[in-house]
Amino acid sequence: MKWRLRDGPIRPSILDKGRPAAFIEGIKTYGLVIHGGAGAILRREMKPADERAYRSALGDALRAGYDVLDRGGPSMDAVVAAIRVMEDCPLFNAGIGSVLNAEGDCEMDAAIMDGRTLAAGSVAALQHIRSPILLARAVLEKSPHVLLVGTGAEQFARDLGFELVSNGVFKTERRIRELEWARRLEKEPGGAGLLQSMQERMVPEPGDPDPPQKLGTVGCVALDREGNLAAGTSTGGLTNKKFGRVGDSPIVGAGTFANNRTAAVSCTGHGEFFIRSVAAYDLSARIEYAGLPLEDAAASALRKVAELGGDGGMIAIDRHGQVAMPFNTPGMYRGFRLSTGQSAVELYGNEI
Amino acid sequence: MKWRLRDGPIRPSILDKGRPAAFIEGIKTYGLVIHGGAGAILRREMKPADERAYRSALGDALRAGYDVLDRGGPSMDAVVAAIRVMEDCPLFNAGIGSVLNAEGDCEMDAAIMDGRTLAAGSVAALQHIRSPILLARAVLEKSPHVLLVGTGAEQFARDLGFELVSNGVFKTERRIRELEWARRLEKEPGGAGLLQSMQERMVPEPGDPDPPQKLGTVGCVALDREGNLAAGTSTGGLTNKKFGRVGDSPIVGAGTFANNRTAAVSCTGHGEFFIRSVAAYDLSARIEYAGLPLEDAAASALRKVAELGGDGGMIAIDRHGQVAMPFNTPGMYRGFRLSTGQSAVELYGNEI
Repeated sequence: MKWRLRDGPIRPSILDKGRPAAFIEGIKTYGLVIHGGAGAILRREMKPADERAYRSALGDALRAGYDVLDRGGPSMDAVVAAIRVMEDCPLFNAGIGSVLNAEGDCEMDAAIMDGRTLAAGSVAALQHIRSPILLARAVLEKSPHVLLVGTGAEQFARDLGFELVSNGVFKTERRIRELEWARRLEKEPGGAGLLQSMQERMVPEPGDPDPPQKLGTVGCVALDREGNLAAGTSTGGLTNKKFGRVGDSPIVGAGTFANNRTAAVSCTGHGEFFIRSVAAYDLSARIEYAGLPLEDAAASALRKVAELGGDGGMIAIDRHGQVAMPFNTPGMYRGFRLSTGQSAVELYGNEI
Repeated sequence: MKWRLRDGPIRPSILDKGRPAAFIEGIKTYGLVIHGGAGAILRREMKPADERAYRSALGDALRAGYDVLDRGGPSMDAVVAAIRVMEDCPLFNAGIGSVLNAEGDCEMDAAIMDGRTLAAGSVAALQHIRSPILLARAVLEKSPHVLLVGTGAEQFARDLGFELVSNGVFKTERRIRELEWARRLEKEPGGAGLLQSMQERMVPEPGDPDPPQKLGTVGCVALDREGNLAAGTSTGGLTNKKFGRVGDSPIVGAGTFANNRTAAVSCTGHGEFFIRSVAAYDLSARIEYAGLPLEDAAASALRKVAELGGDGGMIAIDRHGQVAMPFNTPGMYRGFRLSTGQSAVELYGNEI
């Protein structure tokens, strides 16, 4: 299958070759799109075994979500199914394999939104919930509130019968090494600035050591047979984060948004810039108020983030099964699968 | 001074008679708008002494902010000055006089946004910071992050030299009685539902006891002599709130937003609905992408909240000094003052 390369007014690394060239008019399409984080994902630096592992994990997540849709299940269930696979996979910065904060603990955020009802549930600063996206869904379904944070959110989970697990469940050797690396760098002269700049740019200069993390986040957007959209995002945030920092992932409108009338959106990247540009809802508003098609709305919403200085990417799907997956980083773990038979798993940008 | 009554497709209680009829073309206007919460604020139920107290407090807040603008200060400073007056006043649900959560403590949120740079700072679930809006501004100016929550946010404050005060500083007799009332009601058969419905509707049916609180929040939007916009919001949230619930106030795009190219916005009301409709940014997007004038953008953004079932209000100002203060509750504590000489302090809707 060949994907056309797109030209446009924005820098080529934003563009994505994985977009389906067309959808079939009049036929009800269903399907989903996932991401596993954007960042300095470069073909020349990826070991073949790592590439296979990422492709395999993305394929597993796509399959879990698609199976739900294929048997007629709702997009909300597909989003949860795909994200749980990625939360359980130590490769991604969400659930197991989350990065460590300055105290050496995993601290996780998640959100989910139902495009049919505009109902939403979000959780932030969790340390003991195995699947943050499941708890976000419980907030949506079983609480009059949208956003619960910290120990209060975990008390809500306990009351519902969720098991609270040890924080050690989430920690992996790789993330412990990354935190040690970040702490060492922070202590060197100019190291804190370098660390921040690397986390912000996510593209190491020649000679820079590897960035301690890739601003990973996982997300899924889905369209079901009924034409209902849903979006979800789950993340461990930033390595060495301090002071109860919360990024865009659990913020409705910033990292996550869904409305049947426009699109379902999940973002990944340097969260502060996605919050300030209200990125996920900006995409939706450009469809609703400016009449842009999905791909243009996604590219221009991401351009707004980039103009503020932010890097990252977003995935989106609309009610016709149109898909967009723009990013302005070297790469983004991503994939989609549609009932038209079109599907792809991609890691890199349009590098030669 | 007479204010015209406006007709429109939305229910009259949304409409506001306090809007200046016109601004003066070609003259650089500056000024500010404030709110002190929306809810069941009814002329027939307000004691004259209470009305005087609210009018006086709103006047003080307007004066504090206007003085900054008048002597050429930036809109960010005016927003902080006006909000600090309301945080320090026990009449409003922010800072001193914040409502009590289920544990009997005050738990506060705030956000501020600079329309010139789109920089933003937010804090949530604070228990020991005298002026939450000041800490939100410190997050904007002195942290690479946008949103800090809970004890982490307070550690950040301590590192900057903020004094951490006892939670008792914020508690007032009135809020303690309101919590006792809410707890009693919650235990009665059907009481929890009644309580929630009263908090959501905010309009007591004949025979209902008074709602335990009025979904109060304070906010300010300002335009300075340089043409820069800023917005800020500060709140104690919901009486008897549980599980680390965070509302729309500290969420950029939901309760607070500012962009010089569109408007500065601060919302008040049933936060969950403002989060789900991304209300503050929705107003901005309707100006930016649909080309609506400020007042229409505000009315239609609030209508979207109302269509989801939410009640509340919003204040907004654009770079021309146009002002909007729509609400769909019986009343909203509000006021504005412009360099054109126009000003008003209002409490009620268009009741007869």
